[in-house]
Amino acid sequence: MAGNTDADQGKAMVRRGSARRRERRGGKTLNQLPWRRLRNRYKPIEVLDADGLEAIHDTSMRILEEHGLEFLHDEARSILAQAGAEVDEGSRMVRFDRALIEEQVRLAPSRFTLHARNPDRNLEMGGDSLCFAQVSSTPNCSDLDRGRRPGNWRDFVDLVKITQSLNILHCFGGYPVEPQDLPAESRHLDCTHAFITLSDKPWHAYSLGGGRIGDAIEMVRIARGVTCAQLSHEPSIHTVVNTNSPRKVDTPMLEGVIEMARAGQSVIVTPFTLCGAMAPVTLAGALAQQNAEALGVIAFSQMVRPGAPVMYGGFTSNVDMKSGAPAFGTPEYVRAALAGGQLARRYNLPYRSSNASASNAVDAQAAYESVMSVWGAVMGHANLVKHGAGWMEGGLVASFEKMIVDAEILQGMAEFLRPIEVDDGALALDAIAEVPPGGHYFGAAHTMARYETAFYSPMLSDWRNFEQWRESGAHTAEQRANSIWKSILQSFEPPPLDPAIDEELTAYVAKRKEEIAAGTG
Amino acid sequence: MAGNTDADQGKAMVRRGSARRRERRGGKTLNQLPWRRLRNRYKPIEVLDADGLEAIHDTSMRILEEHGLEFLHDEARSILAQAGAEVDEGSRMVRFDRALIEEQVRLAPSRFTLHARNPDRNLEMGGDSLCFAQVSSTPNCSDLDRGRRPGNWRDFVDLVKITQSLNILHCFGGYPVEPQDLPAESRHLDCTHAFITLSDKPWHAYSLGGGRIGDAIEMVRIARGVTCAQLSHEPSIHTVVNTNSPRKVDTPMLEGVIEMARAGQSVIVTPFTLCGAMAPVTLAGALAQQNAEALGVIAFSQMVRPGAPVMYGGFTSNVDMKSGAPAFGTPEYVRAALAGGQLARRYNLPYRSSNASASNAVDAQAAYESVMSVWGAVMGHANLVKHGAGWMEGGLVASFEKMIVDAEILQGMAEFLRPIEVDDGALALDAIAEVPPGGHYFGAAHTMARYETAFYSPMLSDWRNFEQWRESGAHTAEQRANSIWKSILQSFEPPPLDPAIDEELTAYVAKRKEEIAAGTG
Repeated sequence: MAGNTDADQGKAMVRRGSARRRERRGGKTLNQLPWRRLRNRYKPIEVLDADGLEAIHDTSMRILEEHGLEFLHDEARSILAQAGAEVDEGSRMVRFDRALIEEQVRLAPSRFTLHARNPDRNLEMGGDSLCFAQVSSTPNCSDLDRGRRPGNWRDFVDLVKITQSLNILHCFGGYPVEPQDLPAESRHLDCTHAFITLSDKPWHAYSLGGGRIGDAIEMVRIARGVTCAQLSHEPSIHTVVNTNSPRKVDTPMLEGVIEMARAGQSVIVTPFTLCGAMAPVTLAGALAQQNAEALGVIAFSQMVRPGAPVMYGGFTSNVDMKSGAPAFGTPEYVRAALAGGQLARRYNLPYRSSNASASNAVDAQAAYESVMSVWGAVMGHANLVKHGAGWMEGGLVASFEKMIVDAEILQGMAEFLRPIEVDDGALALDAIAEVPPGGHYFGAAHTMARYETAFYSPMLSDWRNFEQWRESGAHTAEQRANSIWKSILQSFEPPPLDPAIDEELTAYVAKRKEEIAAGTG
Repeated sequence: MAGNTDADQGKAMVRRGSARRRERRGGKTLNQLPWRRLRNRYKPIEVLDADGLEAIHDTSMRILEEHGLEFLHDEARSILAQAGAEVDEGSRMVRFDRALIEEQVRLAPSRFTLHARNPDRNLEMGGDSLCFAQVSSTPNCSDLDRGRRPGNWRDFVDLVKITQSLNILHCFGGYPVEPQDLPAESRHLDCTHAFITLSDKPWHAYSLGGGRIGDAIEMVRIARGVTCAQLSHEPSIHTVVNTNSPRKVDTPMLEGVIEMARAGQSVIVTPFTLCGAMAPVTLAGALAQQNAEALGVIAFSQMVRPGAPVMYGGFTSNVDMKSGAPAFGTPEYVRAALAGGQLARRYNLPYRSSNASASNAVDAQAAYESVMSVWGAVMGHANLVKHGAGWMEGGLVASFEKMIVDAEILQGMAEFLRPIEVDDGALALDAIAEVPPGGHYFGAAHTMARYETAFYSPMLSDWRNFEQWRESGAHTAEQRANSIWKSILQSFEPPPLDPAIDEELTAYVAKRKEEIAAGTG
């Protein structure tokens, strides 16, 4: 029967033909793709037809026109009123004519460069560019050795190092875990300092009030060695603004929009619209609400500063209606991610999506939910995929092992995006003529010239046969991931940083901590 | 900081709003989607541009014209010569003019119905139809309790029962595992009998010589209660014909094509073209060879009987060039699956792809490789996805737990394919108006009217929070899958079968076993 199966024939043949044994993966060298910018040249998947897209757009305009959004911040409402929105100071509700929304949204750039302190790491947000950020904003972290625990400074630092080391991660989307053991009032200084000294990739600042945003902006200015004027035309840091769905935008978030837009820095507006909880139970309704909230805040950002860099964030998913628990990587999530891309493109805005999973373990569920999310993001033509690696439990945990599992998934997607080479060499007619019927290509000149770089070489996947795998310990992907992140930390070296800049930053942090302690910051 | 994260806000809100606890999943009822036919209305992903597609087509035509395929079977070569192919009897090589290939391939139907013994289970092969078959043709099987073991009759029967019970699986693609404890010469009779009595879904016969194919055709005729004449116009069974790549077609496979095509039954022609082993190391070259082999055999099938139902099978993947081990679910595999769909559509042929993984464990690797494969198959617009559930180790193992993991993945894809409903009810403007800013939708009339059926309800995924999950035993997806397949087997009931048909089948099997034992069969 063996000769009759799809696989046996091949397995037998490749074993016959193979002279070499797979080398045991060493603990020292990380077998990963080189850092590179990704372009997505495939056509996006469209889950909405033109009528459906327009119906959702129209409903979102009616939400903004007839019902509006609540803006909790006084100055924000004053900016909105001045720009022509209809503001009710009693209820703090702001209604927008659709012409006003469209006119303001049109001011936002369709693409912009996010500058890193190392210019080689600059990123494009928009067009067919695709960037991956790491897990962020989780209160807890976990790994196989130490289990699940509240976030702390040591883990924060380790996760920053891993993010810096994984080439497939292009930037930070926030703190990889919340360092709960640092004083809340000055934590942002330590975290930003660590981002700058341990990494040369672009990072993120939380919208937690103007003072903190101001520190982040000043520190990125120092790190880049540029003037305020230059920085204000070169987005170098981003923040995420979540609406307090449904239809509410709170004070710290609005302060973040104002500070960041004024400074010319990037604002990613992401409503968190879980169908059945903070949004209608129907996908079309949740998308209409997402669109209304996103466009309302994006329009506001353009009133603050016309042309300020913004991104359209989609994070619509559903809850388990039995328990109310949020779910991710579901069929609803994937379709919402793809529809979100259609909406963002309708307004020529860069698009942000996520790699999300609700799993409690780094198991098959974690992987299938994440791969589903990533396909939704990538084929929705997201320009930035937040929580790209490490996100677990719907955002309550950053997992060291899942960082590696996800990095492997993201690398696979990056390679999937490479166009198939079609030229005379690749078409291989000579090689096909050379190998006799029933023969094999192992020794063909065509193979020998290309085999070392022909295929994606995985970081995590183990393709050895069962016997070899069992003899070497029968390690699951989770266990192998555990070894990989440890070897990353063992060999970590921080990227070069001008000592003068380092000194200036250290002084800035010390001064600001003093001011904060004295109550003058 | 909690209020500043994407997820915490939502998690807190949904917990606040939820009155009910998720019920512990019982062992009795399988929470699965109803059986239904799937339609894929999204546009396929195209990884080749028009020029690339034509270059691969042209190269495959040159392979057939200039180099040809080896056909090991005398009658096959005589049929080929008579139809106008250039046959060299000495080398057994057959060359085809491209006009001959195109003329013959054009005779194949672009779609056909695969009839089941229960007409409610009839399947369409072609168009935007999507069908999933189970794991097949593995020599071994495994589960968490009993480990990995050679295939045997008891496991065969159990896997047939699970396939019948999982609504997302539409048909059988072969033996779910090889029952190595049954005599090889009469095994096909027991297996076919089990397919018919334990399931009412369409099944498969191996191309292992004319006698066995003849038995399978006669048994499906009895099971359906139809005449030979009716059966010959109603495909009711399918076989997979793998070429012995490169460029060789062996005798049992050609006997299978001849018998099946003459009987009007379905032939799935699937070259097994592993880049770097049985095919060029380059994707374009491997696809050109795949296309030449597939079209050569498909053209042959039409010479046997014009209009015989056939499918274009793609199974191009790559090997690990360090060890020669085959790899699946890789970026190369996904692009080949999508390109294979483009080729099949170029010739208006129904397309077959697979859900494949090389993993040795039912872990994150198994899941991410399988989800990648399934996306390649579905967005390549495969009409039949073989090995849809349970395939491990590149086809060497059928895993009971992976059957369930994959069924969950396939269910997710099925739901992903449902169009987003966009009408006034779904757009939910009234509900959005009703819920105040910062409120929630749990109690809204719009939610109450829809929540029970609003979302996909998973079979395997566990969305409980970490504490609840830990208290209930911290079971991984693999462990939960173990409980699910056991509960399926506990509650299995065979589908109804006319006792007269059952009797006739039993008598047929007994008579044929006697003939085989006597050496007259």
